[in-house]
Amino acid sequence: MASESGKLWGGRFVGTVDPIMEKFNSSITYDRHLWEADVQGSKAYSRGLEKAGLLTKAEMDQILHGLDKVAEEWAQGTFKLNPNDEDIHTANERRLKELIGETAGKLHTGRSRNDQVVTDLRLWMRQNCSMLSALLCELIRTMVDRAEAERDVLFPGYTHLQRAQPIRWSHWILSHAVALTRDSERLLEVRKRINVLPLGSGAIAGNPLGVDRELLRAELDFGAITLNSMDATSERDFVAEFLFWASLCMTHLSRMAEDLILYGTKEFSFVQLSDAYSTGSSLMPQKKNPDSLELIRSKAGRVFGREDKEAVFEVSDTMSAVLQVATGVISTLQIHRENMGRALSPDMLATDLAYYLVRKGMPFRQAHEASGKAVFMAETKGVALNQLSLQELQTISPLFSGDVSHVWDYGHSVEQYEALGGTARSSVDWQIGQLRALLRAQQTESPPHASPK
Amino acid sequence: MASESGKLWGGRFVGTVDPIMEKFNSSITYDRHLWEADVQGSKAYSRGLEKAGLLTKAEMDQILHGLDKVAEEWAQGTFKLNPNDEDIHTANERRLKELIGETAGKLHTGRSRNDQVVTDLRLWMRQNCSMLSALLCELIRTMVDRAEAERDVLFPGYTHLQRAQPIRWSHWILSHAVALTRDSERLLEVRKRINVLPLGSGAIAGNPLGVDRELLRAELDFGAITLNSMDATSERDFVAEFLFWASLCMTHLSRMAEDLILYGTKEFSFVQLSDAYSTGSSLMPQKKNPDSLELIRSKAGRVFGREDKEAVFEVSDTMSAVLQVATGVISTLQIHRENMGRALSPDMLATDLAYYLVRKGMPFRQAHEASGKAVFMAETKGVALNQLSLQELQTISPLFSGDVSHVWDYGHSVEQYEALGGTARSSVDWQIGQLRALLRAQQTESPPHASPK
Amino acid sequence: MASESGKLWGGRFVGTVDPIMEKFNSSITYDRHLWEADVQGSKAYSRGLEKAGLLTKAEMDQILHGLDKVAEEWAQGTFKLNPNDEDIHTANERRLKELIGETAGKLHTGRSRNDQVVTDLRLWMRQNCSMLSALLCELIRTMVDRAEAERDVLFPGYTHLQRAQPIRWSHWILSHAVALTRDSERLLEVRKRINVLPLGSGAIAGNPLGVDRELLRAELDFGAITLNSMDATSERDFVAEFLFWASLCMTHLSRMAEDLILYGTKEFSFVQLSDAYSTGSSLMPQKKNPDSLELIRSKAGRVFGREDKEAVFEVSDTMSAVLQVATGVISTLQIHRENMGRALSPDMLATDLAYYLVRKGMPFRQAHEASGKAVFMAETKGVALNQLSLQELQTISPLFSGDVSHVWDYGHSVEQYEALGGTARSSVDWQIGQLRALLRAQQTESPPHASPK
Amino acid sequence: MASESGKLWGGRFVGTVDPIMEKFNSSITYDRHLWEADVQGSKAYSRGLEKAGLLTKAEMDQILHGLDKVAEEWAQGTFKLNPNDEDIHTANERRLKELIGETAGKLHTGRSRNDQVVTDLRLWMRQNCSMLSALLCELIRTMVDRAEAERDVLFPGYTHLQRAQPIRWSHWILSHAVALTRDSERLLEVRKRINVLPLGSGAIAGNPLGVDRELLRAELDFGAITLNSMDATSERDFVAEFLFWASLCMTHLSRMAEDLILYGTKEFSFVQLSDAYSTGSSLMPQKKNPDSLELIRSKAGRVFGREDKEAVFEVSDTMSAVLQVATGVISTLQIHRENMGRALSPDMLATDLAYYLVRKGMPFRQAHEASGKAVFMAETKGVALNQLSLQELQTISPLFSGDVSHVWDYGHSVEQYEALGGTARSSVDWQIGQLRALLRAQQTESPPHASPK
Repeated sequence: MASESGKLWGGRFVGTVDPIMEKFNSSITYDRHLWEADVQGSKAYSRGLEKAGLLTKAEMDQILHGLDKVAEEWAQGTFKLNPNDEDIHTANERRLKELIGETAGKLHTGRSRNDQVVTDLRLWMRQNCSMLSALLCELIRTMVDRAEAERDVLFPGYTHLQRAQPIRWSHWILSHAVALTRDSERLLEVRKRINVLPLGSGAIAGNPLGVDRELLRAELDFGAITLNSMDATSERDFVAEFLFWASLCMTHLSRMAEDLILYGTKEFSFVQLSDAYSTGSSLMPQKKNPDSLELIRSKAGRVFGREDKEAVFEVSDTMSAVLQVATGVISTLQIHRENMGRALSPDMLATDLAYYLVRKGMPFRQAHEASGKAVFMAETKGVALNQLSLQELQTISPLFSGDVSHVWDYGHSVEQYEALGGTARSSVDWQIGQLRALLRAQQTESPPHASPK
Repeated sequence: MASESGKLWGGRFVGTVDPIMEKFNSSITYDRHLWEADVQGSKAYSRGLEKAGLLTKAEMDQILHGLDKVAEEWAQGTFKLNPNDEDIHTANERRLKELIGETAGKLHTGRSRNDQVVTDLRLWMRQNCSMLSALLCELIRTMVDRAEAERDVLFPGYTHLQRAQPIRWSHWILSHAVALTRDSERLLEVRKRINVLPLGSGAIAGNPLGVDRELLRAELDFGAITLNSMDATSERDFVAEFLFWASLCMTHLSRMAEDLILYGTKEFSFVQLSDAYSTGSSLMPQKKNPDSLELIRSKAGRVFGREDKEAVFEVSDTMSAVLQVATGVISTLQIHRENMGRALSPDMLATDLAYYLVRKGMPFRQAHEASGKAVFMAETKGVALNQLSLQELQTISPLFSGDVSHVWDYGHSVEQYEALGGTARSSVDWQIGQLRALLRAQQTESPPHASPK
Repeated sequence: MASESGKLWGGRFVGTVDPIMEKFNSSITYDRHLWEADVQGSKAYSRGLEKAGLLTKAEMDQILHGLDKVAEEWAQGTFKLNPNDEDIHTANERRLKELIGETAGKLHTGRSRNDQVVTDLRLWMRQNCSMLSALLCELIRTMVDRAEAERDVLFPGYTHLQRAQPIRWSHWILSHAVALTRDSERLLEVRKRINVLPLGSGAIAGNPLGVDRELLRAELDFGAITLNSMDATSERDFVAEFLFWASLCMTHLSRMAEDLILYGTKEFSFVQLSDAYSTGSSLMPQKKNPDSLELIRSKAGRVFGREDKEAVFEVSDTMSAVLQVATGVISTLQIHRENMGRALSPDMLATDLAYYLVRKGMPFRQAHEASGKAVFMAETKGVALNQLSLQELQTISPLFSGDVSHVWDYGHSVEQYEALGGTARSSVDWQIGQLRALLRAQQTESPPHASPK
Repeated sequence: MASESGKLWGGRFVGTVDPIMEKFNSSITYDRHLWEADVQGSKAYSRGLEKAGLLTKAEMDQILHGLDKVAEEWAQGTFKLNPNDEDIHTANERRLKELIGETAGKLHTGRSRNDQVVTDLRLWMRQNCSMLSALLCELIRTMVDRAEAERDVLFPGYTHLQRAQPIRWSHWILSHAVALTRDSERLLEVRKRINVLPLGSGAIAGNPLGVDRELLRAELDFGAITLNSMDATSERDFVAEFLFWASLCMTHLSRMAEDLILYGTKEFSFVQLSDAYSTGSSLMPQKKNPDSLELIRSKAGRVFGREDKEAVFEVSDTMSAVLQVATGVISTLQIHRENMGRALSPDMLATDLAYYLVRKGMPFRQAHEASGKAVFMAETKGVALNQLSLQELQTISPLFSGDVSHVWDYGHSVEQYEALGGTARSSVDWQIGQLRALLRAQQTESPPHASPK
């Protein structure tokens, strides 16, 4: 008789269950993460049952006490799983019954498994979002600090992997920090939608026993209550949103890692990873591989396209590790200022040469073409762009005169970009200030103690 | 000489371009959607150039006038594309030059193509989000109205496609309306992040010519200014967010469609689609297929996993059509109340039977098992659950007495679910009120006239 | 000094490694599956080294013996992992050294980690493909047997979930068996491309020490040798192919599960799952949910879109469980012939009515329209299609005469479909024969003993 | 009355159809590609009907003649679509009726739309696979030719973007050619499964009118006949297989493009794209961007994850363009041999230094560590690895002697890698021979004239 195996739907089944099927259906290997949330949710629900008159005060106290014991066993690593514990909820209730006897059977009154699963998941994810939020802010802060300290280092900005214009090294750091700050904002929005109480929705029709959902909300410190019981037990939008958040954040970290991998090649030689974030080769003794960065990049692929509850646990762990490794990489990275400077070349000032002509009154499209001709002339002659003589330039446009020599100064070039968001020092300082203000604002929104009582 | 072909990077190239490569690189087939946004962006930028002293007032007026002509040609369908117009931006500038001559060449001063592309895309998407927002609200409103009108119709609630508990038909409608209301909230958040000005970021380093980005922002009615020029020109988070929004919204519509397809089968016969949303078979004369619903479902697959700019246009069109078709389907759907009523069966009250015992003091786990035994007994005897005699029930538990007969009333059953979010009439009314309030609040946030001057 | 920790790239590093980074980089939790393949590969490689003169016969024997001990420890569950064992390859070599001393250090001569990883993975996947192949054939065989036994049961064929035409129940089973037979064919193709030796490719440039790759191939019983060493160590096409195979196969199983879930609803009542493949509800005592089928469907989602090596292990386990559960479900499924028969209705013969007119000489398009009019007339009058009188039919077309009554016979209807692939009994028998022949042919291609010596 | 609009399911509908719904349901914008296949399929089917006695010879001739006219109109661009032509099949049949009258209505006898759609799609894809197969072989041939011509150019092989070992430039080319050759093999397998006749399957139950499917197969030159009519009309495995093939092939092209983008940066300077495959910047006059390569890379993203029939047309076009552009890029690419040579550095021979010690009898693990110490010593002293004196090396191991100087020869280094698949000249020649043989074999399998009569 199947009920002897302790399955929750006990009374009805007369066949036995295919053992492969049982293993297939079990989720205990990953949902044990939820043990603490499950105890919290059950404690709140037993308070709700007591207020509704379905538990006496004594029964409630017995249950609360028993649940505390269960939690203690998990915390101390002494909780023993049974082969029949198909999920964390069954396991905890089975253990509660062993500890306090039949009263345990009252705890699930009017609550469905879905009710319980989704409440636990929301509690767990709420806490994890707070943790990830803090790690993300730590990374952004590290980047902003570094950007502030190295504001005066110039190096090539690239587009299409071709050298484009001289920029500040800090400008590059901040471009990534700004992207991560959007991730931080989005995480707060996701957390807001996670922070809604589903408990009290029953299987599908709701709770018929007078349980006060506002009491449950307050006990578990949720920000709101779900509106419809069918939707509440089945929707997992917040899981999809969290996974999308992780994908986008990983895309940003992955792009930053890709840039750093490149900047760390022998050919670029702009940066050098700390040994703590590199590994070697089992065959080639001279190799030092940027494995931390490659792992960040490859983890991105594993975050994309996951859709299930299991993914939440794995993706959350991945994000936690990735954010910490990224913070470590950024804070220990060594830069080679001289190589950065040496990589700046006069042809990167071709835009400035065009602007020189614009300032003399030539329409930009013509100036762009004239500057292009100068580049072509220099290439043909095999000299650098700033080695063309004034006479040579004047064969392209009579507007060139002696002051064209002022164009060939990288420091002067970057200082022109004073519009908000540009690479001039004043604008970089403005960005640093803006990001610091955003970090402060976001931390106010995300309270440090996210764990419910 | 390649410059004769009118390519923007004119002066430098000496080879000719592989024609397959040219076609490959061209985006004009889909980015022509942006014509209006492109004109708006260029008008604002020419005002910025004038304020910075790079255009005289007369030149600016000439450009503004020319751009208005370009817009007029597009609006009237008389704009003629050249084979060399690789994108909408090239096309518009080429035409402007034909209309006003060399002054057109000054418009692009200090602006990069990326600057322009991303500004246009944000303008276009902002307007489209407003349009989709309105369509989504219209659908939700239709659903809420219908839910209100048909509050008294009961039918089976299903889980795992098995009959679970009696619920109100309105409860089912509202479960989907609540999901769509979250989509509506998310769309406003996406729109907020779209509504940020990138223009004035140049290629990568920023704008060096004194263009006032605050003026550009005000001209184009953006809510904020991007913080970093490198990030501004390259990031497409808002595209990914929009596509994710569309995926999630389509998932919800797809699930609703799936339910309705099922409810419309001969075997269920709960609802009937209007002919306006059905099609026939080329071979089988009797067939009437729920093609509108199947298309909604299949379009979902095509929205998922798109990542590019082209996807934005296509997905936006799809969402617009899907939302309108869904509204049409819901507003013309006919329901068969009697079939719905007939589908309710006493075994769906097995949970109520367990609650009956709970109210008599039995712990829920035992009550669940006792009720399960009653179900098994009825199945074995080949009678309905409410046909078991009191004596038979008492062999399962002595707590059963004559008042057990009150359990077998579907109307009474649903009225028990009075907790917030449940299927009792009072709770359904509360849901309707909550959704109406949310719709009003969201409409206030999303201004009706989203188009900039 | 890092070399003390036993890391393979020992001599160079002077920093210490961030512990999060180490954990992040470790693959031992999932690649321990490879222990047997790793020992096989190393044994073969030591034979190659001996032939090349890089090991003496005595050294080779020492290594072979040591590797056998390592394998024994794994097989008996006594192998102990060290915290520093970052992957299975490091673990086995570390243990070998403990067992046989410094000679172990000669085993990796000229072999790179990538060389070893990809060889092990191919060995493991080859064996798993053989196992999955056998399970898949077992499922197909079960389906074909069942189709043969229940050839005479008729039920409605559906399109768009609307009743379309009467078909044999076996025709439905075979439609799924045919799809799975294509999967079986594809799995053999994937296995063929897995069965190629990469060992002897070194890090990137190849093997410089005279190791005979043909000897390695023969030792490990591979079908061919990789062509290019750079490609050999980096390509994972076979992983992508295997995952795609699993996705497609899961799509087929998922569709079959979806049909069965529907056929098992109260509303359809065509089939009933064995209790061994059902579960109950923790709240609703009457529920019996088709969880085996729902799990098959939901597992499909988790197979899609995985891309990494970890996925191979998980997906392979999933496929193995799913194929066995599907076989169990199919072999224990109970069908309700009477309900199937009752679900056939005269309007499903509207196509036959059109063919009746076609046989009387009417072009099909007109016949389709005439039959459609008959359906509409019957609906309007509220009678079944076969209840229309001859006079009524003749108002639609004078071609109708007394013999139209022969149309209303479901058994006769299905027997018309004699063309190859149709639902007539002769055609169903032909399908059964074809599938049996394919199963035999595929088994010949996939040898039972896939494991190398 | 809806039948006046010419819809195929004419007789039944009395409502009117929502115009958005109609547009939504229409596929004519993309399935017009199928016009030729649709005419071929219909011609074969009319021959089948004639043989089955459902058309007279005269009627068949009339239909064949009419279909030829329809084809002629498409070929000459004079075919006019009606607003009611919802797909290519409706359009062609509508036009046929206009041309030959009521006899056209007999063509669809016993054929369902699905029957027709899937037959057309298979015909079209079969032809396209042949075309793509030829383009792919052309690309591989170009690569093999180039590899043969430039066998003597050495350059750095990279792993993790770090310089690893000296290899031949041809070895790199061939590593990509080998991957593409697997794609070529897979395409033939996909084509084999496309090349199966579904026609004669009806809606679901099969064909009841005596149409000879073997005749249809022969007429359309298919290799086999589908086994089950339900499966035949609904399965799209071959679409999924084709899209997977395209994804994998694009992954390979994308990786090659990524390498070339890197090799073409100022920092690497190994290769230079022809101007025909580069574009400039609208803002920066000096820029020359590798747009052909970036497009190949970005197109990869758009090929992944498409699942629908529309995708087939778009993906097929993309593959065709990408393969041609890739061929153009490879055949016009200029290489800078001197820069390649200059990029080789002594530390890339650290593995050879370890092998030197191995050959003197030291176990590889110790030799790897000793070589690693030499690298560290050279770095600490700030000299190149080959600048360490013999005395210095001997402090690491007494096995070093005067002949160590022979290690520092890049040409000698690559010549060691003689095992099959390695980078030695003999092995590269072997690879070239193998690929040439495979190309010949694959061309024999894929007949040049794939189009049916």
